[in-house]
Amino acid sequence: MTPKQKPDHKDLAALLAPDILELLDSAPESIPAETAELHPADLADVAEQLPRKALPAFLAALPSDRAADVLEYLDDDLRAEVLEGMTTEQAAPLVAEMNPDERADVLDDVDEETAEDILDAIPEETRLETERLLEYPADSAGGLMTTEVVSVLETETVEAALSQVRTIARGGKREAMNTIYAVNAAGSLTGVLSLRELLAAPEGAHIHDVAWTDVQRVIGSADREEVARVTSEYDLVAVPVVDERGRLLGAVTVDDVIDAIEEEQTEDVQKLGGMEALDDPYMQTGFFALLKKRAGWLAVLFIGEMFTASAMGYFETELKRATVLMLFVPLIISSGGNSGSQATSLIIRSLALGEAKLSDWWRVAIRELSSGLSLGAILGGLGALRVIAWQMLKDENIHFAGLMIGKEYGPNYMLIAITVGLTLVGVVTFGTLVGSMLPFILRRIGFDPASASAPFVATLVDVTGLVIYFTVALLVLRGTLL
Amino acid sequence: MTPKQKPDHKDLAALLAPDILELLDSAPESIPAETAELHPADLADVAEQLPRKALPAFLAALPSDRAADVLEYLDDDLRAEVLEGMTTEQAAPLVAEMNPDERADVLDDVDEETAEDILDAIPEETRLETERLLEYPADSAGGLMTTEVVSVLETETVEAALSQVRTIARGGKREAMNTIYAVNAAGSLTGVLSLRELLAAPEGAHIHDVAWTDVQRVIGSADREEVARVTSEYDLVAVPVVDERGRLLGAVTVDDVIDAIEEEQTEDVQKLGGMEALDDPYMQTGFFALLKKRAGWLAVLFIGEMFTASAMGYFETELKRATVLMLFVPLIISSGGNSGSQATSLIIRSLALGEAKLSDWWRVAIRELSSGLSLGAILGGLGALRVIAWQMLKDENIHFAGLMIGKEYGPNYMLIAITVGLTLVGVVTFGTLVGSMLPFILRRIGFDPASASAPFVATLVDVTGLVIYFTVALLVLRGTLL
Repeated sequence: MTPKQKPDHKDLAALLAPDILELLDSAPESIPAETAELHPADLADVAEQLPRKALPAFLAALPSDRAADVLEYLDDDLRAEVLEGMTTEQAAPLVAEMNPDERADVLDDVDEETAEDILDAIPEETRLETERLLEYPADSAGGLMTTEVVSVLETETVEAALSQVRTIARGGKREAMNTIYAVNAAGSLTGVLSLRELLAAPEGAHIHDVAWTDVQRVIGSADREEVARVTSEYDLVAVPVVDERGRLLGAVTVDDVIDAIEEEQTEDVQKLGGMEALDDPYMQTGFFALLKKRAGWLAVLFIGEMFTASAMGYFETELKRATVLMLFVPLIISSGGNSGSQATSLIIRSLALGEAKLSDWWRVAIRELSSGLSLGAILGGLGALRVIAWQMLKDENIHFAGLMIGKEYGPNYMLIAITVGLTLVGVVTFGTLVGSMLPFILRRIGFDPASASAPFVATLVDVTGLVIYFTVALLVLRGTLL
Repeated sequence: MTPKQKPDHKDLAALLAPDILELLDSAPESIPAETAELHPADLADVAEQLPRKALPAFLAALPSDRAADVLEYLDDDLRAEVLEGMTTEQAAPLVAEMNPDERADVLDDVDEETAEDILDAIPEETRLETERLLEYPADSAGGLMTTEVVSVLETETVEAALSQVRTIARGGKREAMNTIYAVNAAGSLTGVLSLRELLAAPEGAHIHDVAWTDVQRVIGSADREEVARVTSEYDLVAVPVVDERGRLLGAVTVDDVIDAIEEEQTEDVQKLGGMEALDDPYMQTGFFALLKKRAGWLAVLFIGEMFTASAMGYFETELKRATVLMLFVPLIISSGGNSGSQATSLIIRSLALGEAKLSDWWRVAIRELSSGLSLGAILGGLGALRVIAWQMLKDENIHFAGLMIGKEYGPNYMLIAITVGLTLVGVVTFGTLVGSMLPFILRRIGFDPASASAPFVATLVDVTGLVIYFTVALLVLRGTLL
């Protein structure tokens, strides 16, 4: 089978599921051997294809370390559901076999009673370790880390360390095994070296001779964005986590960092779209849960947008006198929204990557003021040209595909063109400025800059856009149309 | 220094730069020792703080492997600029020392002449390897991979493989060192095992006894999104890259995967904001480059939005007869845009994560139709209530903070409320459907779904929103206002 013809792994899971189901009935003891070569992620896909009620039997048919692996890759909600449906005697050994970080996650997901029952039934040491992890918020370095790291005393020899590592490696899996941490007698992190560097170290050397002492680290309470930043900046495969006094607690492995980055991005994109971030993937979110996350923001934006009706009402006399002004209302407010949306997504991303800092706000403001004026001049020019062109097409009585195009704007069409053009300069500049500054303001007052969604900015800009439009119109058209 | 007080690494670089500059003048030979403990990423930050013209001297003062490391972490543009400013004799040894994937990247970045000169001056084998990498697009698995992977024949013993690995490890760095690939005599990838598993393997075993045979892999031409998906799904630290015949070419390491994920995400957010993706970080993009990326889409959207002026013109008679209809135009079109923006960002993210597939389009359509109707009912209810409430406030002559609130909509205010309410149901449903289907359509015709930006959807929905509004108005208000 060449890689190109390889079926999609989800399809593979769908193909395998019926066979597994049959084996569960006829010969469950053969399941471990039949599935031995499958990656746990694929085996979890197979498990997701099985009927819910067959899942406990399927997990029971696997050796407990393998079943624990499958649980780690299973969809979070399904995993909680399965564990809640098992007896404590069935669930506890599986949970005890999981990696410490995943174990803490799953106990966060199941209902409190199940979590307590399972915690009481797992070995003392595992329980204490898990309780320590559960103290950290799920999104913090402490919540993401595994405690199963390899640490050696800095005073040991390379040979002693290597033999210790081989023993640990034979004893079972340790997630963060490719990196070895050097600690001093107090447990403080003093150095780091990769397994490769340990292998390559000259015989007879001590760990403190060969370890790097400039160790990138995060503290347990650090946010997952900070963990991602350090991992990405220093190309790490694991970030060590320390307590306030610098003692090694564990490490966040790069697979969890990638998951954290992707979750963070999903949240950002959803917020940017003007809704609350979902807790689960879209396809797995229930209809009403989805509606709730969307309706809230949509209603808030709608209520904000109601001020446009008030603004329009305020200028009703002008609108009645010069109905031609109405025609350009949608064009003008949408231009403000679009330019604001561009600016806000640029700045949100720049802040998220740590590329722009809070203190850069004024540099950004100056830059976006110039950008806004330039973009406004371009759109203003296009808008004014549109008015003039349509009037000329009308004057020449030009037809296109049988339809008359062009539009009669009356003798003051030049003034209308000027009104539309100047308004666009103002609206686009204002939209760009608001869109770029809002993420800074939100971060300053402690909110996620990504909440400065495109619709939010558009709503802020719409009312002001109308005020700018009618103010310009009053100035330009006074004595003629108004 | 406790981690909490640790200064930001950029600040650190700014503090160190003057010292380095002084040393460059007085005692350049002491620079390697002075900077030996710094992570190359931090040393690159220091380099970025130095005056441009001091950079070649700074790199020359470092041992060439260290200088090559610094180059790998240096900002892409600066790196190209520095290499272009060096003589070929200075640049070639540094480039030759870089990791193969970074070497190919940097030769992609510098001007063609410099690239050719450097390629001609580096050792034959390195040159051929680099040229092979340069054949792949920068965003493909082949463009991201390093060729320095550790592969062993599947028929070797664990001891022979381990001693081979130790030799390679002592010989110099290999990026993808934590994973060992098993190949057969034809060079085809047949298995994989981690360095840990090799260390833990029983003595006397052969590689094919202990390696995993179910190897996740990508082909050289695979897109970086596919590479990210496989890495994230299977928690890999490196993804092996093979050719069409399954022969091992190299591997993409997880640090490059993270960079690719973040770049992809930046592009998506920028496209979602309604602009072309930037080539460089925002703060480093020149004013005119930035303007070009923004003005294009903004002008296209503006021209699309011009149809709203035509639509408004088409209904001018109705608007003149019932000017009250004007007041709700911004409210109605923005609601369509906002609901479309929500739907489109939800679906774009779901498609990007591979959670929803192209074939799911009809499931999504049904779901979004129901969501749109429900959200439309909520906003429609709010909108109708607003009209009725303002009329009642006006009737009661209620004042708030000295201002009269409320609004006279005339005797047909109930019909206006019904018009606004029904229109909102239609517009929000339409916006939600268009917003959710557009990413599918774009992917189907081979475009990036993320191009279905919030402003793009809003523009599509605005004209239709106006048509819906006036059609509903004609139906409801015929015989009264119209």
